[in-house]
Amino acid sequence: MTNLYKLPLLLERMDEQFKVNPYDVRGTVDYDRLIAQFGVEKISSDLLKRIKKHTKNLHQMLRRRIFFAHRDLSWILDEYEKGNKFFLYTGRAPSGQMHIGHALPMLFTQWLQKVFDVDLWVQFPDEEKFLFKQELSYESTQRYLQDNIIDVIALGFNPKKTHILIDTQHAGLMYKEACKVAKKLTFSMVKSSFGFNEQTNVGSLFYTSMQAVPAFLPSVISKKEIPCLIPHAIDQDPHFRLTRDILPKLGHYKPASIQCSFLPPLQGTEGKMSSSTEETAILLIDTPELVKKKINKYAFSGGKDTLEEHRKLGGIPDIDVSFQYLKYLFEPDDKKLAKIEADYRSGKLLSGELKAYTIGKINAFLKEHQARREKAREDVEKFVYKE
Amino acid sequence: MTNLYKLPLLLERMDEQFKVNPYDVRGTVDYDRLIAQFGVEKISSDLLKRIKKHTKNLHQMLRRRIFFAHRDLSWILDEYEKGNKFFLYTGRAPSGQMHIGHALPMLFTQWLQKVFDVDLWVQFPDEEKFLFKQELSYESTQRYLQDNIIDVIALGFNPKKTHILIDTQHAGLMYKEACKVAKKLTFSMVKSSFGFNEQTNVGSLFYTSMQAVPAFLPSVISKKEIPCLIPHAIDQDPHFRLTRDILPKLGHYKPASIQCSFLPPLQGTEGKMSSSTEETAILLIDTPELVKKKINKYAFSGGKDTLEEHRKLGGIPDIDVSFQYLKYLFEPDDKKLAKIEADYRSGKLLSGELKAYTIGKINAFLKEHQARREKAREDVEKFVYKE
Repeated sequence: MTNLYKLPLLLERMDEQFKVNPYDVRGTVDYDRLIAQFGVEKISSDLLKRIKKHTKNLHQMLRRRIFFAHRDLSWILDEYEKGNKFFLYTGRAPSGQMHIGHALPMLFTQWLQKVFDVDLWVQFPDEEKFLFKQELSYESTQRYLQDNIIDVIALGFNPKKTHILIDTQHAGLMYKEACKVAKKLTFSMVKSSFGFNEQTNVGSLFYTSMQAVPAFLPSVISKKEIPCLIPHAIDQDPHFRLTRDILPKLGHYKPASIQCSFLPPLQGTEGKMSSSTEETAILLIDTPELVKKKINKYAFSGGKDTLEEHRKLGGIPDIDVSFQYLKYLFEPDDKKLAKIEADYRSGKLLSGELKAYTIGKINAFLKEHQARREKAREDVEKFVYKE
Repeated sequence: MTNLYKLPLLLERMDEQFKVNPYDVRGTVDYDRLIAQFGVEKISSDLLKRIKKHTKNLHQMLRRRIFFAHRDLSWILDEYEKGNKFFLYTGRAPSGQMHIGHALPMLFTQWLQKVFDVDLWVQFPDEEKFLFKQELSYESTQRYLQDNIIDVIALGFNPKKTHILIDTQHAGLMYKEACKVAKKLTFSMVKSSFGFNEQTNVGSLFYTSMQAVPAFLPSVISKKEIPCLIPHAIDQDPHFRLTRDILPKLGHYKPASIQCSFLPPLQGTEGKMSSSTEETAILLIDTPELVKKKINKYAFSGGKDTLEEHRKLGGIPDIDVSFQYLKYLFEPDDKKLAKIEADYRSGKLLSGELKAYTIGKINAFLKEHQARREKAREDVEKFVYKE
């Protein structure tokens, strides 16, 4: 059981050569070093107990430390306990189809919304990837935008309490607030935070100001300061670190945040999933056959090369991508997961069997998701924020 | 008469130490050197004849070479002659009350709109000065914005063909187009064009992308390329030079432009008028008494120190601010202006008399303007662009 409560597998394969920022994730990420480097705080057992007091149960991503770090989460709970409810803010930058790695923080956010019964603002920065990817056209971004909105809605957010902001469409509301942030941000600050240089385009330099806006826009709209909690993958932290520095200068609260590690790509533990490479990611629109093919063909296995060896020595769940997918997302039952882990480690469970179980779990999730997707198409208007 | 057709007075007092960009105008501007430096073209007599073919008369600011340079104006006429009408684009960045120097290019634009019967887009970049002036609050900019819009409308534009764009309010339309420009603009490019450095804020770095938008937005809206002509004071040229480089890469025409020199500030020929310093500028809301005081007290005189000396040696109209105001703006009649010039040069006309004449002219203009201002308050809605 202990192993389940450790940080994700990646610590096992430490590497000096990793790099994490919103525009570049490389190497095998050492999350403990990242905690020190970014200055976030590890989520303690005491903090988990405090959350549990309000939520009755803890989400598997908290129990398993998939969400492993935070900034000011205790303050969010202080305010909540005083009756000052927070709102949630998360986002998705369209540049391709969404994959199960994108769903990870969204599903956790959906749980937070439900258990705390709070408002959620979802930003779709439809200019971001267009600005950062030379080859991506504005028109492609817009196609993916529509599709990504449908995926996000299908993940099950409360339509009465969820507000979608689309940067280019809501710029009439957001640009002026972004300018207030931008006035406090110099080239030199964004250069060091994001690894920019003199050849970086001015849209990319400005962009982080737009990403800051949803952290205080609800306060501007309601003319009353509301605490903000941002669940996000750890690579986005440089944006919110800057946001936290600047917002108090504009008379707003510092937003709190809670960070998750990356769902490993199919081929193993380096970098992030990418929608544009079939071998790395399972998309939310993949068919059951394609999922089966991808897991069987590409999912890195922690099993041994031969049946005999595996039976004798056992597999290594910590580096087995199928096992990790169960742990991160698809097997919420701790007892079942512990049994799978033990059986795999002992050699009782074979790689093929583990893969088959994982394929079944993923396909069950995707079947439901894809059905909800069809309904979500009609719900878009309910979710998009109207002034 | 010859003197009248020369470049404005400033050439007479050449200075190595001048600097002209949208964010800094210093020293005595040498317009001939500026033409070479910026790469604009001097307006030739042939070009004036060609304009006159369409306009019957030439505006005093063309006859007197107040508007002295251009880019691609011949192309605008080529297209016009083929039946492909251009639109005009000019702007005003609110940061204070408007003065008569601001009215100068606006009045010329108003004439162009009338004689060519074309659409005009007026941009109010209400974020620009907020971003560039450390001490200017967003709220102050917004107060001046309302007031400046009223001044601009009062200058007499055609309500059916004039469309006001306010950056923060029209960002829903403009921001996405600005991002397309921004993707083609690097830090290094804006740094050298505007004299920025690593401490410049990212809003300022991005801003020129917003100023580029009205040069092609009407084409985007009408889904058909329309030539654009931008009348502007020469200090804005760095913005439009970048715009001209980028627009063809986005499938749009290069905008054409026509440049005017600066109306001299009250104290003489260095720099530009500034609304924030009483001694430098006559505001469009000044009372007749205040105008009288400002001209009498601050307007630099080209006259001699004593009456006797003046009668004997005469004054120098080229450095006399009152005379220059007549030439730039308030005495459209060339014959009258030539007589004033000759009489002043000969010593027949005294400084006090020239000042009194100028005060009368300015106050007559302001009286009408201020009356139109009252009516303009009710017309704002007619002018602000609606999608």
